[in-house]
Amino acid sequence: MTRDTVAELDRIFNPRSVAIVGASNREGSFGRTFVEGFIRMGFERIYPVHPHEKEILGLEAYPNVKEISQQVDVAVVLTPPAAVLNVVEECAEKGVKGVVIFTAGFGEKGEEGKKIEQEMARIARQSGTRIIGPNSLGVYCPSSRFLCFPLALNVGLPKDSGPVGVFSQSGSFVDFLTWAVCPKGIRFSKVVSCGNECDLNAVDFLEYLGQDTETKIIIAYLEGVKDGKRFYQLARRISKEKPLIVWKAGTTESGAKAALSHTGALAGATRVWEALFKQAGIIRVSSYAEVIDCLFAFYYLPLPKGRKVALVSGPGGAVVSASDNCVEFGLELAKLSDHTCDRLAQVVPPVGGTADNPVDLGVAALLAPQTYGEAIRILSEDENVDMLLIFAIPDRPHTQEILEAARRSGKPLVVALPALPEMVPSEYRFLSENGIPTYADARKAAFVLAKLADYAEFRASNSECALG
Amino acid sequence: MTRDTVAELDRIFNPRSVAIVGASNREGSFGRTFVEGFIRMGFERIYPVHPHEKEILGLEAYPNVKEISQQVDVAVVLTPPAAVLNVVEECAEKGVKGVVIFTAGFGEKGEEGKKIEQEMARIARQSGTRIIGPNSLGVYCPSSRFLCFPLALNVGLPKDSGPVGVFSQSGSFVDFLTWAVCPKGIRFSKVVSCGNECDLNAVDFLEYLGQDTETKIIIAYLEGVKDGKRFYQLARRISKEKPLIVWKAGTTESGAKAALSHTGALAGATRVWEALFKQAGIIRVSSYAEVIDCLFAFYYLPLPKGRKVALVSGPGGAVVSASDNCVEFGLELAKLSDHTCDRLAQVVPPVGGTADNPVDLGVAALLAPQTYGEAIRILSEDENVDMLLIFAIPDRPHTQEILEAARRSGKPLVVALPALPEMVPSEYRFLSENGIPTYADARKAAFVLAKLADYAEFRASNSECALG
Repeated sequence: MTRDTVAELDRIFNPRSVAIVGASNREGSFGRTFVEGFIRMGFERIYPVHPHEKEILGLEAYPNVKEISQQVDVAVVLTPPAAVLNVVEECAEKGVKGVVIFTAGFGEKGEEGKKIEQEMARIARQSGTRIIGPNSLGVYCPSSRFLCFPLALNVGLPKDSGPVGVFSQSGSFVDFLTWAVCPKGIRFSKVVSCGNECDLNAVDFLEYLGQDTETKIIIAYLEGVKDGKRFYQLARRISKEKPLIVWKAGTTESGAKAALSHTGALAGATRVWEALFKQAGIIRVSSYAEVIDCLFAFYYLPLPKGRKVALVSGPGGAVVSASDNCVEFGLELAKLSDHTCDRLAQVVPPVGGTADNPVDLGVAALLAPQTYGEAIRILSEDENVDMLLIFAIPDRPHTQEILEAARRSGKPLVVALPALPEMVPSEYRFLSENGIPTYADARKAAFVLAKLADYAEFRASNSECALG
Repeated sequence: MTRDTVAELDRIFNPRSVAIVGASNREGSFGRTFVEGFIRMGFERIYPVHPHEKEILGLEAYPNVKEISQQVDVAVVLTPPAAVLNVVEECAEKGVKGVVIFTAGFGEKGEEGKKIEQEMARIARQSGTRIIGPNSLGVYCPSSRFLCFPLALNVGLPKDSGPVGVFSQSGSFVDFLTWAVCPKGIRFSKVVSCGNECDLNAVDFLEYLGQDTETKIIIAYLEGVKDGKRFYQLARRISKEKPLIVWKAGTTESGAKAALSHTGALAGATRVWEALFKQAGIIRVSSYAEVIDCLFAFYYLPLPKGRKVALVSGPGGAVVSASDNCVEFGLELAKLSDHTCDRLAQVVPPVGGTADNPVDLGVAALLAPQTYGEAIRILSEDENVDMLLIFAIPDRPHTQEILEAARRSGKPLVVALPALPEMVPSEYRFLSENGIPTYADARKAAFVLAKLADYAEFRASNSECALG
């Protein structure tokens, strides 16, 4: 990618004016949802385009892009597929800088659609107009109020930016992800749905987010990439500075077949991807839930110095299985200093508890929330402990104690609650909105700690190489 | 286990009178929590035992068990460890049928404690008094109003029974499990925390629940069993009639070490357990969350006829990864009949959708909830489809459509929602409380369908053997 492409993408992420081609007054149509959504986000210069309507939701409407007298930075295209190529041509003639094509029904449907995509790409190359899509849900860039995702448009998304950049070969992934995690305090820099990638593609977006100073964490959903070598080189370079969390789907034959009809991507062999991810320091996840689990951890927590975990639990059985989980994911149980064990013995009941790692506070902790806080404080001061996994009791006296101790810990700390989130939503929200990643499963908590440790090791070993 | 043991356990699960040894008036003590809890559950004949108090929470208190003039069916023991052996002796002399020892600090602490346990067991054998524990959280049996779990005692648990029987070598597991899932409509027959098993042990409880007509599903948390052969034989026999969901913890060296200090159990080699579970038709899970995920599926859903899944999604990327998930867990994507595909083509938009399995309803499904219902109805009628996995949109128009179609489907159907349960608790509760197992992750949904299919195959192949 040249400097030009970075500049071009900058303009697409930050348009001052947008044409919505396929806008509509009709209730329940995307054409209307999009216009409503742009208004809701406070986007100022919206030019609806419709063959006949003169006005849409109080805004002047235009029969085509060329009839818009003002400068159009970006066109969002929702028309039926047969009309799209013509719209792209008009945009090129008008000097529109970016065309975001929501319309589907091209490369993912077969050869005919691929040819039309090639024609669009040719027009783009000749004119300097760049294309995202087709079959893309578009862009979310809070600082410019630019939001195209249909679900999110219905509710609005925050206008303040944050450190998370996302590129995705599933549109619904970015739509649901932003909608799901913004209410919990996560904020985004730039989010983009790649679509069928007839022009700009996943690797371009990776490079852009890699150099974007606003972006500190990168998330990607991938089915396949068109230039594996460039992807690998970029990923390896960017991972040294920014965690890159990638959900690679289409790893089985059935998944690959579904990917082909979804975005026309060739998904590729699992083992090749695995090796590539590991060497490039990519944080690999394999479900939507795992993306979110890891996002909270990388968003809120410092990186650990090593892979030695201290476990704390009131429920005794939980420490047994949590120990299993930690080992399963390649973590080690921290060997506590004698001094730490002596101090723990002042807090942990001699009967029904264990003043060593894993720390079992005993069933008595049900009635004594402060023992959680004390144990966390003691363990945080032991240099043999790199991070903490707390199996907590889901009520406010306990979560409050844990939150206060966690804030002073200085070490990565995650919480597992033995309760369904939908049954005690307030405790999950209390902890996670205050920066303590909280999971319904100690296994998930161990998983994210392992991802933090793996990434911390990659960073450490690569900076050593750079020095050596 | 003899018929006597079944009868003895029947009496322990259904006591008409309970002595609480170690009862207390002191705020914040277990001695008080237990008495309060028994009163809250509506248990009638409660005899608090305390060395000096004459009355506890309005009930007449006794200095020891022998001073209670009435018959005592079960004694729950909360005293300090040094006093327990004496209490057991008194209970034996009094003719108490069951002693549930909550007090910890015996076998799990070392040789000295093991010797005391052996002495308790000797007293039990001689007298006909049976012991649960020590280090046990006791019993929950709704029909007799008998509940000892400390967390659950604080809030109460339902007084109506249901089909789920549980035995567990973690007390907190049963305490949290019952507390977590009862509000979602799950009901229990008998639940028991095994503790250190000085007398009655996990295998006894398995046999009891196997023959208990009220129990239709059995759940167990195990660290290790004392008689592996008997466990295997029983499990294999019982699995032919009742699903037996087992969370085996302590499978790694660290986990095994934690198990030793938790209940003194020897956890054993992972591979041996794996082979044993498979042959016995046991549904194996490896976390608290997986227990709950599977419980909902086995509680509410019929068993599938085979392992062929139909996937339905609005979000397109989701079907790619959900296909991967299904294959990962050994399921197959159903090959739909031509008739089904033709019918789907009437519902699925030609652009942006796929009228074949996995069924992609396209982003248009956001605005057209009824397409979910129609797709479910069509797929349910295809005999090539054994079960359905629905990736839904988390709002009421969509969940309502899905619920109505699912109820008429006749095939196992699970839902994945791309939203954190704590953010849209109402949609999760709406579906799962109405009998549709609902997960935050398509991977979990695929996991439980695979468990249903595995178990259905075990049942089918074993009844064939019986016939052949």
